[in-house]
Amino acid sequence: GCDRWADCCSCLKLQTHTMGLVYLLQIDEEVAKLLELKARLGGDDGKHQFVLKTAKGTRDYNPKQMAIREKVFNTIISCFKRHGAETIDTPVFELKETLTGKYGEDSKLIYDLKDQGGELLSLRYDLTVPFARYLAMNKITNIKRYHIAKVYRRDNPAMTRGRYREFYQCDFDIAGQYDAMIPDAECLKIVYEILHELDLGDFRIKVNDRRILDGMFAVCGVPDDKFRTICSTVDKLDKMSWEDVKKEMVNEKGLSEQAADQIGEYVSMQGGMDLAEHLLQDQKMSQSKQACAGLSDIKLLFSYLQLFQVTDKVVFDLSLARGLDYYTGVIYEAVLTQAGVASVTTEAQNGAPGSTEESVSVGSVAGGGRYDGLVGMFDPKGRKVPCVGVSIGIERIFSIMEQKAEVSAEKVRTTEVQVMVASAQKNLLEERLKLTAELWNAGIKAEVMYKKNPKLLSQLQHCEESGIPLVAILGEQELKDGVVKLRVVATREEVSHTVDIHTAPHLRTI
Amino acid sequence: GCDRWADCCSCLKLQTHTMGLVYLLQIDEEVAKLLELKARLGGDDGKHQFVLKTAKGTRDYNPKQMAIREKVFNTIISCFKRHGAETIDTPVFELKETLTGKYGEDSKLIYDLKDQGGELLSLRYDLTVPFARYLAMNKITNIKRYHIAKVYRRDNPAMTRGRYREFYQCDFDIAGQYDAMIPDAECLKIVYEILHELDLGDFRIKVNDRRILDGMFAVCGVPDDKFRTICSTVDKLDKMSWEDVKKEMVNEKGLSEQAADQIGEYVSMQGGMDLAEHLLQDQKMSQSKQACAGLSDIKLLFSYLQLFQVTDKVVFDLSLARGLDYYTGVIYEAVLTQAGVASVTTEAQNGAPGSTEESVSVGSVAGGGRYDGLVGMFDPKGRKVPCVGVSIGIERIFSIMEQKAEVSAEKVRTTEVQVMVASAQKNLLEERLKLTAELWNAGIKAEVMYKKNPKLLSQLQHCEESGIPLVAILGEQELKDGVVKLRVVATREEVSHTVDIHTAPHLRTI
Repeated sequence: GCDRWADCCSCLKLQTHTMGLVYLLQIDEEVAKLLELKARLGGDDGKHQFVLKTAKGTRDYNPKQMAIREKVFNTIISCFKRHGAETIDTPVFELKETLTGKYGEDSKLIYDLKDQGGELLSLRYDLTVPFARYLAMNKITNIKRYHIAKVYRRDNPAMTRGRYREFYQCDFDIAGQYDAMIPDAECLKIVYEILHELDLGDFRIKVNDRRILDGMFAVCGVPDDKFRTICSTVDKLDKMSWEDVKKEMVNEKGLSEQAADQIGEYVSMQGGMDLAEHLLQDQKMSQSKQACAGLSDIKLLFSYLQLFQVTDKVVFDLSLARGLDYYTGVIYEAVLTQAGVASVTTEAQNGAPGSTEESVSVGSVAGGGRYDGLVGMFDPKGRKVPCVGVSIGIERIFSIMEQKAEVSAEKVRTTEVQVMVASAQKNLLEERLKLTAELWNAGIKAEVMYKKNPKLLSQLQHCEESGIPLVAILGEQELKDGVVKLRVVATREEVSHTVDIHTAPHLRTI
Repeated sequence: GCDRWADCCSCLKLQTHTMGLVYLLQIDEEVAKLLELKARLGGDDGKHQFVLKTAKGTRDYNPKQMAIREKVFNTIISCFKRHGAETIDTPVFELKETLTGKYGEDSKLIYDLKDQGGELLSLRYDLTVPFARYLAMNKITNIKRYHIAKVYRRDNPAMTRGRYREFYQCDFDIAGQYDAMIPDAECLKIVYEILHELDLGDFRIKVNDRRILDGMFAVCGVPDDKFRTICSTVDKLDKMSWEDVKKEMVNEKGLSEQAADQIGEYVSMQGGMDLAEHLLQDQKMSQSKQACAGLSDIKLLFSYLQLFQVTDKVVFDLSLARGLDYYTGVIYEAVLTQAGVASVTTEAQNGAPGSTEESVSVGSVAGGGRYDGLVGMFDPKGRKVPCVGVSIGIERIFSIMEQKAEVSAEKVRTTEVQVMVASAQKNLLEERLKLTAELWNAGIKAEVMYKKNPKLLSQLQHCEESGIPLVAILGEQELKDGVVKLRVVATREEVSHTVDIHTAPHLRTI
């Protein structure tokens, strides 16, 4: 497909007209390319030198979106703090070699910086690898930390409905040598609490274990050197049918059909602690020590999840694989299951064809697992620091919250201004500025119009538009009397106050 | 100099030994290179495959530093909100062409991304150009917004004492067609409020105007095409002596000595509204219409600053130039003037030679100005949106706050945990987990040790180390009685509470 199609701003109208006319797509693509070229070369008036857009797969947040984002962050951060986490921050780029060999097949999606002399750098792909680098570098063996920051992935546009190339991750991790499954259970408790509090409809948290997957592959006859690549294929089960996954295993990855069929039987299994018990008795599975270790830990995990009262949303699901290379034990992923919630896709925001089609799967909103080997990869002596963590991916959550806000009658305020200092008469700029400064000095959120003689109506309109509850009105008479008139914008109720702000309790306690 | 010298971790010791022995530096550099090469190739034990460091000019923030950073951010954000600003966010990278031609001589410091197919991208150099791009792209003509985010500059290491290549900017900007100098005065008021509240010692805010500079250059006989480059040289007056600045003007930039001397006279002038009035009468300066427009605006600005009660810290200083190309009117810069505050430099943290020398100038902590032409550069029809703004650079502020925290007796808490759920007896893990979950569900910040049978002492030690005020102690007897023992860590005072958290007012009101 045309790489520029979805990005071209100049031809949005044209695209809209032809939307749905699939047989015209090829022509449109050519037109779009030409229009973009024209725009780059100077357009109609010779002034349009810039293609006015953000980089592909990225977006701006406007004030309304920021207000929603802040709300989501506050919920997530409150939860992380409730669980006793500290926070750290790391640079947006790392030495390229720090990221090398950590992401398996996904490594091709890493953004590299241009070699401008000096070190070879890459944008971080997640927050987990920088965290492990941080632990090794500072010789930290125990920490519970959260980190909220943007990560970068050069995702293939054809695969990125609803995905961005720059997006936030909210990570919570527990590093340290502890008794089995206790920190792991806390991570799941955290996912449960956050999804519950964000009120996004029903959800499921799928749980599996890398050791169970590896054991399963072994007993199904997958050669050792194909574990990782077969695991990647299993990971696609949330997007592809079993038939297609099987085809990839057999045709592309050279697995025997018999092995694939056996895997197919296992990965269709879902349950709770009972399924783990059942599989511990399974004739085949029980032959793998690894699988048994994983299954026993799943049992233990569920016993802690019962104490945490979260088992109603957690499913032991053998089809859960997760793509990243570094997981060594428990893995999990949370999905929203409420039907009818269409996620806003990147393409939809760019107005490309396909934007009207409803996205069926809301998809994963959190994931994580245990990675006991990662820190050791950075330590000069290979000293291991066991870690388990979870990452909340909030772009989809934002999309849903945005849609909810649009539907809701409640207006989203983007400022917190309490009072507008206004005047009905001319030549009172100095008095307005002076009073505004007094309000600021008293810690009150106040605005004043940047005009010498603004109309009262436009001052009041600004209050209504941005939800400012109060307006302080200055006039010749009020100045003489040493008072300000304070009007409640919604009710038009008015009171007079002495000008000394420090004795104006109505303002101070808003 | 050797680019890797300051970055090499393996040879720190060696560097320390030879520190100050300047004649050995050349040899040391070679040794450092070899040691680094050795580390890269596998080191002594064949396991040290990574150079364990962050990219040059960047750093991690540990939990203590994050606690301080949060405090600084809160002060700044409160101020921005008090002045009625909304917030936006833009991507960390922009199309390369978006940044082209906006930064003058500084453009060479822009980080480019590697061409991996697709668009040519660069990391943002500041938040102002992305803001202007955002306004033009969304056809916004009025907004007051703040934006706090990291920006990226490939600064020359030799020039970067106390500077980072990745650092935060906290920007506040007012866009819109308003009456002269009112928004400009508010920006200065904001700088004043923030530096006052952060309590970093005395400060000055220098003010000048690009039109005054340009007028001054014109009346001093600087050719039109040399305004920008001479302006860049004047900008170095805070780091270089007048003698050196003059040399650069005359020898490197080909200015006549007479013109340089005349500039020298003007740029030594400092004052307030009176100086602006004086220069409006100046025989030479008054010949420039531009300079007069600037001087009149400085007068007007000072009249508003008087109403805002901030003139005690503001100085009209003709030597202030600021490097960026896009300013068109008022410019300003805030500097901390308190002596004896040494800033922690990048080099100091990397342990390179020179780290022990005390940095004398604390330097600029905020800067900004008016840029009425920037948005028009992005608009297809060249429509202008007048803008004025200020950027708080907080790395130096962090450094000072960190030093203050180190000196202070008060311990910086990095978590907000209110209670630790502990036990003195064995086999009570389940009860501890259950109670902890109940506390979490009640919104209480609680921790529990991830061990089956932790020692009471180690549980209490953790409370003392991380400042947790309360410990809930479970025992067989308490379980029988249906109570928990609640101990105040500091005083060892103990009370018994019923286990039902919802009726435990002590915990709920902490």
